[in-house]
Order: sequence, then structure tokens, then C-alpha cells
Amino acid sequence: MKKALSIGQYLLDQLYRHGVRHIFGVPGDYVLGFYRLIEESPIRHVGTTREDGAGFAADGYARIKGLGAACVTYCVGGLNLTNPTAGAYAEKSPVIIISGAPDVKGRERHPLLHHLVRDFRTQQDVFAQLTVASTALEDPLTAYHEIDRVLHAVERYKRPGYIELPRDMVDVAHAHEHQDRTLEELTDERALEECLAEAAAMLDRSRRPVILAGEEIHRFGLQDALVELVDKTHCPVATTILGKSVISEVHPLYLGVYGGATGRPGVRRAVESADCLLMLGCFMSDINLGVYTARLDPARTIYATSEKTSIRWHYFENVPFRRFFQGLLATRLRPRRKPPVPQPKAPKAARARDGARITTATLFPILNAYLTDDTVVVSDVGDCLFGALDLTIHRRTEFLAPAYYSSMGFGVPAAIGAQLANPSLRPLVLVGDGAFAMTGLELSTAARLGLNPIVVVLNNHGYTTERQIMDGPFNDILNWDFTKVVDLLGTGQAFSVHTVGEMRRALEAALANRDSFSLIEVSLDPYDMSPTLRRLGAELGKRAAGKTG
Amino acid sequence: MKKALSIGQYLLDQLYRHGVRHIFGVPGDYVLGFYRLIEESPIRHVGTTREDGAGFAADGYARIKGLGAACVTYCVGGLNLTNPTAGAYAEKSPVIIISGAPDVKGRERHPLLHHLVRDFRTQQDVFAQLTVASTALEDPLTAYHEIDRVLHAVERYKRPGYIELPRDMVDVAHAHEHQDRTLEELTDERALEECLAEAAAMLDRSRRPVILAGEEIHRFGLQDALVELVDKTHCPVATTILGKSVISEVHPLYLGVYGGATGRPGVRRAVESADCLLMLGCFMSDINLGVYTARLDPARTIYATSEKTSIRWHYFENVPFRRFFQGLLATRLRPRRKPPVPQPKAPKAARARDGARITTATLFPILNAYLTDDTVVVSDVGDCLFGALDLTIHRRTEFLAPAYYSSMGFGVPAAIGAQLANPSLRPLVLVGDGAFAMTGLELSTAARLGLNPIVVVLNNHGYTTERQIMDGPFNDILNWDFTKVVDLLGTGQAFSVHTVGEMRRALEAALANRDSFSLIEVSLDPYDMSPTLRRLGAELGKRAAGKTG
Repeated sequence: MKKALSIGQYLLDQLYRHGVRHIFGVPGDYVLGFYRLIEESPIRHVGTTREDGAGFAADGYARIKGLGAACVTYCVGGLNLTNPTAGAYAEKSPVIIISGAPDVKGRERHPLLHHLVRDFRTQQDVFAQLTVASTALEDPLTAYHEIDRVLHAVERYKRPGYIELPRDMVDVAHAHEHQDRTLEELTDERALEECLAEAAAMLDRSRRPVILAGEEIHRFGLQDALVELVDKTHCPVATTILGKSVISEVHPLYLGVYGGATGRPGVRRAVESADCLLMLGCFMSDINLGVYTARLDPARTIYATSEKTSIRWHYFENVPFRRFFQGLLATRLRPRRKPPVPQPKAPKAARARDGARITTATLFPILNAYLTDDTVVVSDVGDCLFGALDLTIHRRTEFLAPAYYSSMGFGVPAAIGAQLANPSLRPLVLVGDGAFAMTGLELSTAARLGLNPIVVVLNNHGYTTERQIMDGPFNDILNWDFTKVVDLLGTGQAFSVHTVGEMRRALEAALANRDSFSLIEVSLDPYDMSPTLRRLGAELGKRAAGKTG
Repeated sequence: MKKALSIGQYLLDQLYRHGVRHIFGVPGDYVLGFYRLIEESPIRHVGTTREDGAGFAADGYARIKGLGAACVTYCVGGLNLTNPTAGAYAEKSPVIIISGAPDVKGRERHPLLHHLVRDFRTQQDVFAQLTVASTALEDPLTAYHEIDRVLHAVERYKRPGYIELPRDMVDVAHAHEHQDRTLEELTDERALEECLAEAAAMLDRSRRPVILAGEEIHRFGLQDALVELVDKTHCPVATTILGKSVISEVHPLYLGVYGGATGRPGVRRAVESADCLLMLGCFMSDINLGVYTARLDPARTIYATSEKTSIRWHYFENVPFRRFFQGLLATRLRPRRKPPVPQPKAPKAARARDGARITTATLFPILNAYLTDDTVVVSDVGDCLFGALDLTIHRRTEFLAPAYYSSMGFGVPAAIGAQLANPSLRPLVLVGDGAFAMTGLELSTAARLGLNPIVVVLNNHGYTTERQIMDGPFNDILNWDFTKVVDLLGTGQAFSVHTVGEMRRALEAALANRDSFSLIEVSLDPYDMSPTLRRLGAELGKRAAGKTG
């Protein structure tokens, strides 16, 4: 029996034990008591300008550190977190959402409390749709256990969890026992054995096997194991769009990012012509599949994720992802020679003249030339993401993007979370003008904390991705003078870039400025775009017009 | 049988019939087909920078025009509307939320579509919690009828409704019949008769009756009826905080805004000492009740709303609000003389010297002096709201504020909706620095549309309301140079104000500038605040510390 911590203290204690050192949020009266506890704890509170900024920051933090947390007030705060929480759910980012709530005691007497929507269950019912586990700590008898349950589910499934903490429960203490739960999943040993034997036989028979790696490699911490598997099997390895950078992109067997017809033709050929495709931790979303232009033959596929394991057309129950991975590493496989892998060529930035007008095609090679081991690339949604797929990430998991859920506004706040999670990283944020208008002023928080992200705003004067699908006046937006953000916030460095030479010089100046954020506005033609977007837009356009399913 | 309009056309047709001339939103691929239809319709699409801006704008629009609409894409768009929708629900603002969605046809084949959270029901399940009626138009057989049902419920209950429109249903046409539904509610005529007789007897017996009017007077369009009732009965009339401006505040029998201990002492005395209190369309939320400092004796109270009708301690079923109101107007009441009503004195702005440092106490009288018949005051949450309660609104329903749900960020976007709803109005927006950081850049939309709101930013360097409850470093925010917003957006006029004289001159210049928005930053001490906030903060502080229920 431990000393009885209060419910609020216990929650902070458990978050700390799970590695959380920062909690993001905006204060509000229903949560101030818990904020006071945060101030007294070794965890630091990071105030953001908006709640969704806190949610994206916690998501970025979780992707680097393994767990993130956002803490806000009831409804007016919590409901602003629904979209970032949904994104974390869709893309498997383990984030704990903590919301204050009205006192449990007063609820019967005073049914019309401010911030209330319909009844006292409303917010919890909403978050039940968006999280893997949710609870309202309304009873001290079960509160401690409920905290354990939600944290365990978040850790186990790498999805967000929701904890509602009524104001009058924060300081309530009750005797409780904490038992660490095992994360071991139920395993059918015979099924695992059969599955591994079949996979090994397929690999041994194959002449051109390829590994396709997805985001679960990162979520379940299997990056080292993946390198070991690649080095052992000498299989060339590609990643999905969402899995970009789960392996260092300078690894000699790295093929590139696979995305069906929207990706590079060489990578596509290698993946689709493989006679054995080992898909590890990939989810076959429309984006990952290049809007269903991917041609992956199940007859040649071994598919393993935390949710499903299959070979060809048959499935295995209770074959956990980690165990399958470990088993494969321990299985003796036919030795094979290291195949020649065409290294993804970083396009030559040097070719573009200094005086040439900057375009998406010349921008990304320049960025690529300046990436270092310390860069974490954080991309928002839009053409910045499609262009960014061609960047060569040096180390692993240093490319963050909401590539499946695709919520605009992720970039700037997620970069704040990423840099706090690992202060040795320097974020390079890629964001369009539309998305910057949504959450870019979260640079206010970077300014307060003295963080130094480099934010590249690809200003193509509107919603360029949608222009490709269906053009109309609704895709136009007001042209901001983005460089004035530094005047508004009273700090930072800004550059407006029209040519290749200006871009190089701005990037060098930004890299040299370690004391504040830097913002580089890149002026692009509204119809300039990356080849990937051109292909993807054409596909989505057909769908928007109802021509395909 | 009408000519078969497509589902999308029918939805626009019905919105137009209900008075909607503008739809607010941000485009996205699942909704582009419907956006194309909006462009072809007589309804204008108004692009906002963020979805929540669209939600608040639609709310402001609805409060002026009787119905508002926001239209966004699936999940990444829709979920950013949860908070404004919840606010509209809590405060009874009739807003239609329209969301695009993936094709119905492709759902079985392609379960992992971008923007998807958990399954295809997730977003609808979320909005079912936040709306009075919701539907997904997945079947042409029922789609037309479902549109009618949701619109009817929104009109009937003055709460938001949710319509999900899958991409491949927009252009589908099916034979349909439209029948206008009656908004007449079930009435128990005998109960109504008894209720009216008892109310009339109570009024006739009373010597100092008072009417307390709430926001439902506005929502159900009973403003003229209220004036008629006041003029007929010669009852002095106060409003709740949320009901502020349901009657012109220059009416000779107007007492002021009632808010328990947080309101003006004179109004409190008049309301609480009334020997018959006729409460019409008021909801007794904590804010309206001055955080439960109100002392309203049920023994002397007649209470009528759209949800409940009671006299003293007994209730009446099926006595609709409108019928009760009409009945009261038709009932013969004992004539009484016009009582002397102390007119709410607009504090003398003239008293403050030009060189005096501006404070909340001197700011509001200055603003008051410049209010005209054309001003609509739109207040955000925080001390700007508490200060604004003392303004004298000339005409009715020209004070908009989220005074119960209290979501920060309402002000600037709602003002855009209000001005589009009635272009003869000029919005005066009152907003704190914290709330401006959340949604103030929605001025981008005002700039694009050439609207001319005057935005007064009360810069008290942080979350002043919360400082009153529990102070801590989490209430501090970065100090922006708000005047630089005009440089960022490339248009508008800005003023930074430190003294009374500067404030007067800035306001005069802003009023003279009809071509763009004007922004006036008022520099206030972090601990300067209105007397109302001082009283309210003290009450909430006790609660946050858990001393009261």
C-alpha cells in the first residue's frame, strides 16, 4: 500500500513515470486546481495560444518521446481538442487528454453551469468516439484504477486516451494500490510458429524480396529491429508515406518512399515487382496506397501489424506484431547477397541558378542540401508534404507529418512539441499559407519558450491541393505578408524569398540564428506544384467528380 | 410532386427559403462538389481561415438573421466545429452544420480513407451529442425528408442541427415531396387558461412587479411582444446577462442587466424586492444568477420559457412559451401607473482627463458615448464582457456575446457573421488579448470581404479572469504588438492607446474609416479590471478552491 497521493498527484506521478515532462494546454477555471499541482510537480506546463495547438504539440511530443499530454478546461477547452485527438487516433499517436470538469458535488443542485453543453456526460461521450479508452474520475474508489487503465490502453494500442478530472476530485486522496500491468499480449504459440515457418519459407524461396515498413515500426519502438532485419536478410526496404523515416534514409538498402502511382517510379517498380513483399506495420490507407493506384499482389505478400497478421489470403489470430518481428529475427533464413539498390538521388540543387525564380521543384533540393543529423522535418498537409517526401532524412523518425488523417494546422504546433521532447533537434517546419493561417501564430509559444524552429511557408496563394481537384473562388485566400509575424510577436527573424539564391541565403541565415524562430516565406505561383501533387490531384479530381468509387 | 432537385440542390433551396444568404466554411476534397453547387446558387460562400471561425460566424449570423450555416469537409473540418456548435447548442442559436463525407459507394471496398478517425459513423456520433437533430444523407429515398426534419427541429428548438452529405450523394436526384411543417406546439388549452388566470391574478395583486427578460425573447422573435407587454403592464423590465439588449436599453421602463451580486446594486434591489417577478425566456445558469448570488424567491415568481412554465412551486405541461406570451398580452390586467424607474446612468466619460491613463473603468463610458443606432456590440469572453454589460444598447438584439457557454474566440468571427447578416450594422468588437490570439486573425476574412468592424483589444497581458480565480504563471501570455496585424494582413487601420484622449481620438478615427477594419489596442494593467469581474472572480475563486459546491 502506497502513501495515499491525491487523485491529481497520482495522475501526474503516473504521467511522469511514463516519461511525460511537459503538459500542453490553456488554463480555464475548471482546471486551475490541477494546474496548480502541475506547477508544484517536476512536469512543466506549456501554455499554448489555443487548445488545438496544445493537442498538436502533444501529438508531436508523443511521436518523439512515446507519450504526450494535453490538459484543458471543460468543453470550451476540451471540444477544441477533438480534431487533434482524432488525428492522433487515426495515426496512432499516444496522447493523454486531460480535461477539467465541474464539481461532482454541485451537479444535482446546479444543473446550468457555464461551459456546459447538454449534460455532464456530453464531453465524455464525444471523446469516447475519439479515444481508445476514456474515463471521468468521479469516484475516489475507482479513480486510481481508472488512471492505470487508461494509461495502459494508450500504451498498449498507441492511441489517445481521455481523462476527465472534476474540480473537486483533484485533491481528494484515497488509499490505492498501483500494479504495473504487463503489455504482453495473448499469443497463440502454435499459430506464431506456423506463421513464422511459412514466412521464412516464402522469403527463402523468393529471389527479389522487399520490405515495406510503416509507422507502427516507430510506434512500437522497432526501429533497431528493422535495421537488424534488413541487415540480416539483405532485403531492400521502402517505407510507406506515413512510415517515412522509420529507417534512416541514408541506409545502403533504402529504396525510398512507396506511394503507388504518386510515388517515384523506381521505388514503385521495386516494390510492385518484388516476388515476396514483407509488409511490416503498414496500414493500407488511400494515401499510403497512392489513392488506390498501388498494385500489391496478395499472392506474394506477408502482412504484419499490431492489428492483423496474414500471409497471402489467410489470417493468423493472436500473433502479436512484436513477437512476429522477434521471431523473424531469430529464424534462420537462407543467406542472400546484398542486392544493388539504386540510391534515391537527391536532385541537384546546384543546377538551379541563383537568379532563377524559386519553384517547388527547386525548393526541395535546396532544403535537402541543408538537412543535418539534428534536423527534424515537421510537415503540414498540402504540397509541402508531397514535396517533403523527396527529402532525405538522415536519422530515423525525424520526419513527422499527419500523412493519413491529413489535418491542416499540424506543422507549427507539432514542431514545438517535437523540440521540447528532444531539445537537441532543430525543427524544419514545412507549411502552406492556408495551414499557416490556421495555427501558424502558435509561433507565439515558440517565441515565449525561446525555441528556434525554422518555418518555411510555401505561399502559393490558396488551397493548391484543392485547386487540383476542383478549382473555384473558394480556394483563394487573403495574401498575408508573413514576414510581419515577427513584428506582431516582437521576436524572430523573417525572410521573403523569390529566387533560388534568396532561398539559399535565407536558409543559411536561419540556420545561423539559434536564438529565435525563423520564418521563410517562399513566394510560389498558385499553380506551381510538386509532381506528386500533380499526380495525386488528378486522381482525387476524378473521385470528387464521382467518376470512381 | 416537385421537379426532382438533386439532394445538394434541395438542401441549398431549403436553406435559401429559410433566409440563409451566406454559408461559412473552409473547402476540402469531400465537400468540393457541394461547394460548386453553392457557387451556382444565390447563396454566397464565405471562406474563413479556420473552421471554428466559420462556426462562430454562422452563430453570429443566426443570432441576427434567424438561421446560420457552416459547411466544411469531413472530420479534419467537421471536428473543428465541435466547440462553436456546442456553444450554439448551449445558448440556443439555430445553426446548420453541413459536412462533406466519403462516398457511400466506396465504403465497403476502401475502409481506410483519409480524414477517417475510427469508422464512418464517428463524426455523426460526435455531433449527435451537440445538436438537436442530426442526419447522414446516405439514402436518396430518405434524404429529402431528413433535410426537412433537421431544419424543422432547428427552427423549432433554436438549437444547431447536423447534416452529413456524402460526396456521391450531392448530385443524386430522386422524386420527393416537400411539406411545410407547422411549428405549432401541442397545447393543453385548459392548462394554458389556468396558468394565465393565475399569472394575471398574481400580477394584479402585486404592487411592485418586475419583468426579467432572457435570450429566448430574441430566439423566438418576441421582442415586439415584450415591448407591448411592458407598455401595457407598466412593469419595469430588467434582462439577464445573456438576454442583454432583447429590449432597447433606452426604453423608459428599462432597469438594466440583472446578475445577482455581480450586477449593479440598483438593478439587483429592484429585481429581488419585486413582489411579483415575471421571468420570460430566461435560463437560470450560474452566470445569469451571478454565480448563485441571486436571491429570487419562487413564492413571487412566474417562470415561462420554451422548455418549462411554472408559477411559484407548481408546473404546467404543454403551455408553449409563445402561447403564454400571446395569452398574457390578450388578458385584461388591472391598470397601473407608470412607476418611476431610475435610468441606468451612463457613467460620465467626460469626467476623465485626456491625459489620464486608460483603465477599464474609463474605457467603457467612452465606448458608450460613441454607440449609435447602427452599432452592434459583439463581445468575446473575459473582462470585456463584464465591462460591456454596462454599455447602453440603443436598439434591440444588438449585443451579442457567448455569455453562458463562455467560449473564448467568439468575438471577431461572430462580428463577421453579424455584419453579413445585416450590412447596415457596424460591429464594435470587444476582445481580450488571450481570445484575440485564438481567433482574432479571422480579421483576414473581414479584410477580404471589405467589412469594417472596429475591434477593441483589451490588452491586459494574460488571462485576467483566471488571475482573479487562481493566479499562476500559466495565466501569462506573450505580449503581441496587435497593431502589426494591419501589416500582416496588408490592410486595416490600427491604434495603440494608453490614455483617455488617445482612446477618444482612435475611436473617432475608426468610426470615420468605413473602408476597412480598425483595430484599437488598449493597454491595460494586468490587474486592472471591471468591478463586475472583481466580484465574479472572488466568487469563482472560492469555488475553484473547493470551498463551495
